[in-house]
Amino acid sequence: MKRLSLIDSAFLMLESRETPMHVGGFNLFTLPEGANEQEFLHGLADNMRTADELQSPFGEKLKVGRLGMLGPLYWEPDNSLDLEYHIRHSALPKPGRFRELFALVSRLHGTLLDRNRPLWEMHLIEGLQDRQFAVYSKFHHAAIDGVRSIHLTQSMYSADPNERIHHSPLSMAARDRYLQALQLDAPSDEELRNVADRLKAAFDSSGHLLGALRRYAGAWTGNSPLVVPWQNVPRSTINTKVDGARRFVAQSWPFARIRAVGKAMDGTFNDAVLAMCAGALRIFLLNHGELPRESLKSMVPVSLRRPGDMESSNAVGAISADLATNIKDPIKRFRAIKASMEAGKAMFQDMSANEASLFLQLIQMPGLLLIPLGLGSRFPPYSTVISNVPGPRQPMYWNGARLEGIYPASIVTEGIALNITLVTYDTQVDFGIMACRRTLPQVQRFIDYLEDSLVELEEAAGISAPGAGATAKAKTRAKVKAGTKSKARSKAKTKAKSKAKPGPKTKAVAKTKAKTKAKTKVKAKAKTKARPKAKAKAKSRPKARPKMRASASA
Amino acid sequence: MKRLSLIDSAFLMLESRETPMHVGGFNLFTLPEGANEQEFLHGLADNMRTADELQSPFGEKLKVGRLGMLGPLYWEPDNSLDLEYHIRHSALPKPGRFRELFALVSRLHGTLLDRNRPLWEMHLIEGLQDRQFAVYSKFHHAAIDGVRSIHLTQSMYSADPNERIHHSPLSMAARDRYLQALQLDAPSDEELRNVADRLKAAFDSSGHLLGALRRYAGAWTGNSPLVVPWQNVPRSTINTKVDGARRFVAQSWPFARIRAVGKAMDGTFNDAVLAMCAGALRIFLLNHGELPRESLKSMVPVSLRRPGDMESSNAVGAISADLATNIKDPIKRFRAIKASMEAGKAMFQDMSANEASLFLQLIQMPGLLLIPLGLGSRFPPYSTVISNVPGPRQPMYWNGARLEGIYPASIVTEGIALNITLVTYDTQVDFGIMACRRTLPQVQRFIDYLEDSLVELEEAAGISAPGAGATAKAKTRAKVKAGTKSKARSKAKTKAKSKAKPGPKTKAVAKTKAKTKAKTKVKAKAKTKARPKAKAKAKSRPKARPKMRASASA
Repeated sequence: MKRLSLIDSAFLMLESRETPMHVGGFNLFTLPEGANEQEFLHGLADNMRTADELQSPFGEKLKVGRLGMLGPLYWEPDNSLDLEYHIRHSALPKPGRFRELFALVSRLHGTLLDRNRPLWEMHLIEGLQDRQFAVYSKFHHAAIDGVRSIHLTQSMYSADPNERIHHSPLSMAARDRYLQALQLDAPSDEELRNVADRLKAAFDSSGHLLGALRRYAGAWTGNSPLVVPWQNVPRSTINTKVDGARRFVAQSWPFARIRAVGKAMDGTFNDAVLAMCAGALRIFLLNHGELPRESLKSMVPVSLRRPGDMESSNAVGAISADLATNIKDPIKRFRAIKASMEAGKAMFQDMSANEASLFLQLIQMPGLLLIPLGLGSRFPPYSTVISNVPGPRQPMYWNGARLEGIYPASIVTEGIALNITLVTYDTQVDFGIMACRRTLPQVQRFIDYLEDSLVELEEAAGISAPGAGATAKAKTRAKVKAGTKSKARSKAKTKAKSKAKPGPKTKAVAKTKAKTKAKTKVKAKAKTKARPKAKAKAKSRPKARPKMRASASA
Repeated sequence: MKRLSLIDSAFLMLESRETPMHVGGFNLFTLPEGANEQEFLHGLADNMRTADELQSPFGEKLKVGRLGMLGPLYWEPDNSLDLEYHIRHSALPKPGRFRELFALVSRLHGTLLDRNRPLWEMHLIEGLQDRQFAVYSKFHHAAIDGVRSIHLTQSMYSADPNERIHHSPLSMAARDRYLQALQLDAPSDEELRNVADRLKAAFDSSGHLLGALRRYAGAWTGNSPLVVPWQNVPRSTINTKVDGARRFVAQSWPFARIRAVGKAMDGTFNDAVLAMCAGALRIFLLNHGELPRESLKSMVPVSLRRPGDMESSNAVGAISADLATNIKDPIKRFRAIKASMEAGKAMFQDMSANEASLFLQLIQMPGLLLIPLGLGSRFPPYSTVISNVPGPRQPMYWNGARLEGIYPASIVTEGIALNITLVTYDTQVDFGIMACRRTLPQVQRFIDYLEDSLVELEEAAGISAPGAGATAKAKTRAKVKAGTKSKARSKAKTKAKSKAKPGPKTKAVAKTKAKTKAKTKVKAKAKTKARPKAKAKAKSRPKARPKMRASASA
C-alpha cells in the first residue's frame, strides 16, 4: 500500500458534486485505411482488457483508514477489478460533428468517478465524421497529473504507423517497454519542453527556502513583479460559484505561429501562450462590459517532475502570472506577463525539488482551506488556470490509427470557472477549454478570441502583413465548434456563401496550403444547420487560421 | 415555494454517491414510417424545448434553507433554466442491440443528478436496430414517484398515431390537456390497476390508526401472516453494501400469461408477479448455493395517490411481503405470499390517506435513520423491492412513433442491491431490473429465472401442457439481453443452429404467431458476437416465450 501525499489527498478532500477533481481529455484518431470502425474499436478495447499486471494507477483503488477522509489515505490493489466498467464504448448522435463530441465530453467530464474503484474511465467514442474516432479518458487528479498522463499516452502509442502492440497499454509490460525507450532514446526528454524543464536542472542545487519565503512575503507589500495568490485578484464573471455541469471546447493552432510570437518579443513559447490567453480574456471581458481595473491573475502549473519519473502522481507546482489584462498595448502586455513569470520562476531557482514541493504546499494551503468553507468564490486566489503540458513532438499511432490531436480537459473549481490547458503535439498546440456551464455558457467564443488575440500579437510583433488580421478574423469563423447559434457561426455561413456562391444547400470547405514552417495542412469547415449537401471551396491565408487538426480530413 | 414533505426530503438526505435516489427508465419507440431518425429526434427535442410555462417538476429546483439539508427544503422556480442541459441527444455504439442500450442505461442511471438544477434529465437515444429509438429519463425520487411518472408519460403521448402534439409535453398546456382528458374519459382511472387501487376506495373511511399500529406491534411476537420490516429478514448476497455503479436489464412478458396464473391460483395479478419474482430469487439463490433458511422479504410499494392527483410527488406507501423463498412447492409458496399481502393490505384497510401516510412514515423511520449510519447493509429492513406500476392499457404514440415498451429503472440502496420494477403497458408487462454492478454482476440471468419461475407456476396451476415448460425454457434463451457470454446465450446460439442449420455466420430469428388473448406478436432474436449475417427461422410456442416488445420489429 502506498500512502497518498498531502497534495494528492487534497484533491480528494476538496472534491464535491460541484467541483469534480478529475483531469483527462480526448485524443482524436483517424482509422487506419480499410479498417472497420466497430471491429477496430472492439479490438482496441479487447487488447486493453488483456493485461495481467496493470501499471499504476489502473489497478489501484483508494483505501481510507480509520480516520476517514481526513486521516491518511492509501492506494491498494483492487482485487475485483472490473475492466468492462472502466473501458467503455460510446457513440455520438448524428451528424457526429465536433459539436456533438464536445457535448459528450462536457457531460462525461461533469460526473464524479466512483471512489470504490480505481479512479479512471476510458471511453472509445465512435460515430465521428471522416473516419475519425476519439478516446476520452478521465483520471482523478489524486492519481495522476498532466505530465504523467502524457507519459501514459506515450506508453500506449507508437511513433511507427506499422507497429501493432500486443500487450495491453495498461500493463506493466507497456510501461517497461516505454521506460526502456526513454533510456535508449535520450532526446525524447528534450521533448518535455515546459517552463519547469529549466527549473528541474536547478532543483538539486542547495536550497534557499527561507530566502524564497522572504521574497514571497515581500511581494505583499513591495513593488516586485512577483505575483502571489489572493493579491489584487479582481472579481470577474469567471470568479463565481460553480456548479457541476461543464462546457468544453477544443481547438488546435500551429506551434510555429505561437513560438514565432514568443521569439519576436524576446520571450518563451509559454510567455506567448499566456499572452494569447490574456488577450482573449481581455476581449471576452470587454465584450461583456466588465473588464476589471486590476489585471487578471493566472495560476500557471509547473512540473516538478524529474526526467524519467513515471511514478509520482502529482509533481506539480504553481507560479502566479500577471495576465496584464488591464494593458491595452499588446507589446506592453506581453512584457508585463513575461516579467511576472520570470519573477515566479526565480522563486524556485534555488530550491531543491523537495523544498519547492514543501514551499508550494505552504503557500497553497490557505486556498485548500478556503474551498471547503465555500469561500473560494469570494476570495479567489487566481482568476484562471492556464496550463501548458508538453506532449510528443512527432506523429503518434495506436495500432496504425493516427493520433490527430491531444485535447486536454481539466478542472474547474469554486471561484475559478475557467481552465485553459494545452498540449504541444507534433507540429500543433491543442487547446482544451473547460468551463462551468452556468457561469460561461458562451465559452465557445473563446476559440475566436484566442485567434483574435494571436493575430493582434502577430501584428504588434510585425510578423504578419498589416491588414492580414482583419481578413484572418473573418476567416476564423469558418470552423467546427460547440456553439452553432452564435453570431460567429452565421458569419461563417455568410462568408462561405459570399466566397463561393453555392446553391441553397451549402457546405463550405475552405482549403489552404500552409506555408508556415510547421508545414501543416489546414482545413476549416462550416456547416449549416440544415445538413448541407453542396460543396464550395475558398482560399484563405494559412497563418490566420486556427485549425483543429481534428477537422482536417487530409 | 412549495415545501417538501418529510418523505420527499428523506430521498435527498439519504442520497450518496453509492446510492443515487433517482427513478426513471427508458421508453422504447418505433419511428413512424418514412421518418428520418435524426430529423425526427431533433424535432422531438426542439418541441420539448418550446414550453413557456413548465409543469412540475420540470422547471423547479431545490431551495435549501438556512438549516441546510437537515432543515426544511423547498421547490422554487429555476429562473435560469437551461433546457439544453436537461434534454440530451445520445447514441449507441454499433451494433446497437439491447445489450448496448442496457449498458448505456446502466451508466446513465449510475450518476447523480445536479442539485443546482431541476432534478431531471431526458436522453433521446439513437442508433438502435430496426428503426427503433429510446428515451431514457431520470427524475429524483424527491420530485416524482412511479405513478406520477406514468401520468407524465401519458400526458406526453397520445393514443392516436396520427396526432401531432404542438405544445411541449413539458408544458402546463400539456398537463391541462391531460387532466381534461382524465375527466372526460372516466375509465382511464380503471387503468391504474394496482394493489393500492383497492386501498384507495377505503382511504377516506373513518380511520383506525391505533388499531393498525397495534396489529403491527403484534406481528413482532405473534403468529400473524403480517410481515414487518427487519423481522426475520435473512442475510443474502443481495443484502450487502452497494457502490455507485449499476447493471440494468429489461424484458417484457404478456400480461395475459401472468394474470392467468393469478386467476388459476385464486390471487391477484400482483400476487402472481410477486410469486414469479420469488421463484426467480429462489433459483438464483439455489444456483449460488446460498438459499437462506428464512424466506426473503420484499418491500412492495403501494400507491396512496387519489384518482386524478397529479400534484403530489410521492404518494407511496409500503407493504412487506413474505416471498416464501424457503418453500419448494410453487402452490404453497403462492399461498404464503398471498396471505402476507392480504395481511399487509388489511393494515391500511381502515385508514384514511393521511393516516396511512403518517403510519408509513412512523414505521419506515427506523430505516431512514439506519441508512446514514451505514447500518442498512447489516440490518436490511427488506431483502428486495418489487414494485408494480400501472401504465396505459392501450398502444400509445409520440408524434406518430409507436411506444413499444416502458421499462422502469429504479433505486438500489444500502443493503438492498436489487430492485425489480414493472409497468403494465398495452398487452404486456415490462420489467426493469436494477442491480448494484459489483454485488450482482450476473443480473441478466434473472431474466431467465423469471421465465423459469413463471413456467413453474403455470405448470403447477395446470394451465400449460405438461412438458411445455421444458421446451419453453430452452426457447427462452433466444432473446436479446445484456449478458452475452452467459451460458444462456450460448444455448440460444446452439438452439437456433440446431433448428435452422445455418452457415457459419448465424443470425437466428425465431418467429411466432401469438395465440394468446393478448394477441401479441412475439419475436426473439439471438445474435452471435461475431456480427451475424445469415438468417434462420424457428417456430416455437408463444405462451412459453418471454418477450421484449422491444425485440419485436413487427
